[in-house]
Amino acid sequence: MKITCTKELLSHAVQIVQKAVATKAQMPILTGIYMSAADNILELQATDYEIGVSCKIEADIEEPGSVVLSGRYFQEVVRKLPGDKIEIASNTEDRMIKITSNFAQFNLLCLPAEEFPVLKPLAGDTIFQIRDNILKELIKKTVFACANDEARPIFTGGLLEVNNHDVTMVATNTHRLALKKDMIDPFDGNLKMIIPAKILNELARVMVSDVPSNVTISCQRNQIGFAFDNVYILSRLIEGQFPDYNRVIPPNFATTVTINTNDFLDAVERVSLLARDGEYNVIKLAFRNNAVMITSNNPDIGKAEENVQAQIEGNELDIAFNAKYITDILKNINSDQLHFALNTPLSPASVKPTDDPNYTYIITPVRTN
Amino acid sequence: MKITCTKELLSHAVQIVQKAVATKAQMPILTGIYMSAADNILELQATDYEIGVSCKIEADIEEPGSVVLSGRYFQEVVRKLPGDKIEIASNTEDRMIKITSNFAQFNLLCLPAEEFPVLKPLAGDTIFQIRDNILKELIKKTVFACANDEARPIFTGGLLEVNNHDVTMVATNTHRLALKKDMIDPFDGNLKMIIPAKILNELARVMVSDVPSNVTISCQRNQIGFAFDNVYILSRLIEGQFPDYNRVIPPNFATTVTINTNDFLDAVERVSLLARDGEYNVIKLAFRNNAVMITSNNPDIGKAEENVQAQIEGNELDIAFNAKYITDILKNINSDQLHFALNTPLSPASVKPTDDPNYTYIITPVRTN
Repeated sequence: MKITCTKELLSHAVQIVQKAVATKAQMPILTGIYMSAADNILELQATDYEIGVSCKIEADIEEPGSVVLSGRYFQEVVRKLPGDKIEIASNTEDRMIKITSNFAQFNLLCLPAEEFPVLKPLAGDTIFQIRDNILKELIKKTVFACANDEARPIFTGGLLEVNNHDVTMVATNTHRLALKKDMIDPFDGNLKMIIPAKILNELARVMVSDVPSNVTISCQRNQIGFAFDNVYILSRLIEGQFPDYNRVIPPNFATTVTINTNDFLDAVERVSLLARDGEYNVIKLAFRNNAVMITSNNPDIGKAEENVQAQIEGNELDIAFNAKYITDILKNINSDQLHFALNTPLSPASVKPTDDPNYTYIITPVRTN
Repeated sequence: MKITCTKELLSHAVQIVQKAVATKAQMPILTGIYMSAADNILELQATDYEIGVSCKIEADIEEPGSVVLSGRYFQEVVRKLPGDKIEIASNTEDRMIKITSNFAQFNLLCLPAEEFPVLKPLAGDTIFQIRDNILKELIKKTVFACANDEARPIFTGGLLEVNNHDVTMVATNTHRLALKKDMIDPFDGNLKMIIPAKILNELARVMVSDVPSNVTISCQRNQIGFAFDNVYILSRLIEGQFPDYNRVIPPNFATTVTINTNDFLDAVERVSLLARDGEYNVIKLAFRNNAVMITSNNPDIGKAEENVQAQIEGNELDIAFNAKYITDILKNINSDQLHFALNTPLSPASVKPTDDPNYTYIITPVRTN
């Protein structure tokens, strides 16, 4: 193989695939980045068998071929190369790949390319399309609510549900649930897939086109593929039955509070300074006299309290939450005002932006004495 | 105690003293920040017995007194407080300190103020003054060369030498040595003190006055005190005999090379990418044909090489160094060009900026086969 390409394109491609490079080397070949050159296209690939990523860029191909280089070193070398143009050439005698740019020359040992499990795009029984900006928003507004512990795998992923022209993403760790709806071009049939949070985060990270473009999603048995721009991402799906989230959302509320999002966020973050080290990071909220009084109490450190103006309709009440579950949603609400809707001190509450009926967050209170 | 002050001044003071707050609580009281209020001055103090720091700010003192608060929480609370004004009041009934700003109120448990080892400025047998910008430069240009391991304590500090109007700071880990000289107002006598690197770094961090101002340095037995602006820093000195650094500096060199500082730094950083994980992080330099060829070789990863133009006077030679010892000095040279002076592949070399005769760096080569 012998190719020339711009540093800009190559760095971009390396950044796209790098997160899929395996760090713990169960199989050494998976710690590599696979490069394949043909027809003026250089394709980079990396996979850890959980996620596989491919990125294609333009290159002058003097000699087609494929090689695998240590992901870690190749990435660092490319980032630091001095020139705008980079030449990559494999050497038949030794197992070295020569990377040249200006006066700098690196000879990196390569891994056996024939051992690399090359990514095969899904033929795809089911295929539909979604705008990248819509998919990105679905992910960002929900994925943070996934569970971290692997004890119950289905909660470590987000549910993507497609039904005609409705698309919904839902994530929950059973203590809080985030749901975001949107529309797509009518798609005949309905789909339910649980996508690992790790892949969702990776998707959101690499979808960077300035102008909205289409993502083509194809599924096959327990796999899902995302194709957009010059990128292809293949992921396993999480198997299992996602609970019926509609049953978690209370039909109506006895109290609805309207609060300024940022004032509330700042106050909660301050008061939770002293709650953080407590076992459950608990803050108490007292909704009365058109204000919410936020308090925390840590016997070893001290107490904090702050008042935020609020407009309360319905019963006044006291309730307690895990502070992180509150700040997580407040950071994801873009509208100036939010609606905090409640029933009793022990029943689930809802937090919604005032301007987006398609975004719902349900949070279970904490029992305190 | 009851006081009011601006958030700006209090945050500043907390930042100045925080690095002296003990993290591992051999003595709980040392994890606190001591505050003492009198005569419209609020003084903050912290100490871990290695270093003690005091910072005074203006405040409205309604009720004088002194308290000690958890350094960690007080610092976080102050940073997050919403208003420009902060009120701090101790409560006689409980052991709580009330901190109020706008609608936010914190009640922090306080530590027993009477147990805090209040800082006593040195009476000072010897006192001299130095401009803060000069002291800062002496530190920054040398302290990085100190040894990290405590095996030989004298090398974990920088030697500050004062002789009439000459001031010199020297640091070495026995493999490389950095020396910076400057002038002060004539001072009668001569002084040699080894100051812990930790304290030197801390000093450089907190000397932030925009206009050069004087630092008053006083020493007494094994302690040294630095007074500037509204800050006082007290530190222990490292005891022991610092080696005669003049014997380390070669009187003359067989080869003198002039190189562009940044080109050389960039090339060394690139080439050392592959050396870094080697046991000694070794790069080889070949000085010949008015260029320096920088190479590294890591059998497990690959090879790197780069050429940088250079003007060579005297013998050509090949020599090897720990790459970090080279990049450390290159990052501290501000002039476009530097002089790299050498004798033999196994004798110490010198790196100097072309424009500063008072800055010297000596580096011992690595033996390679």
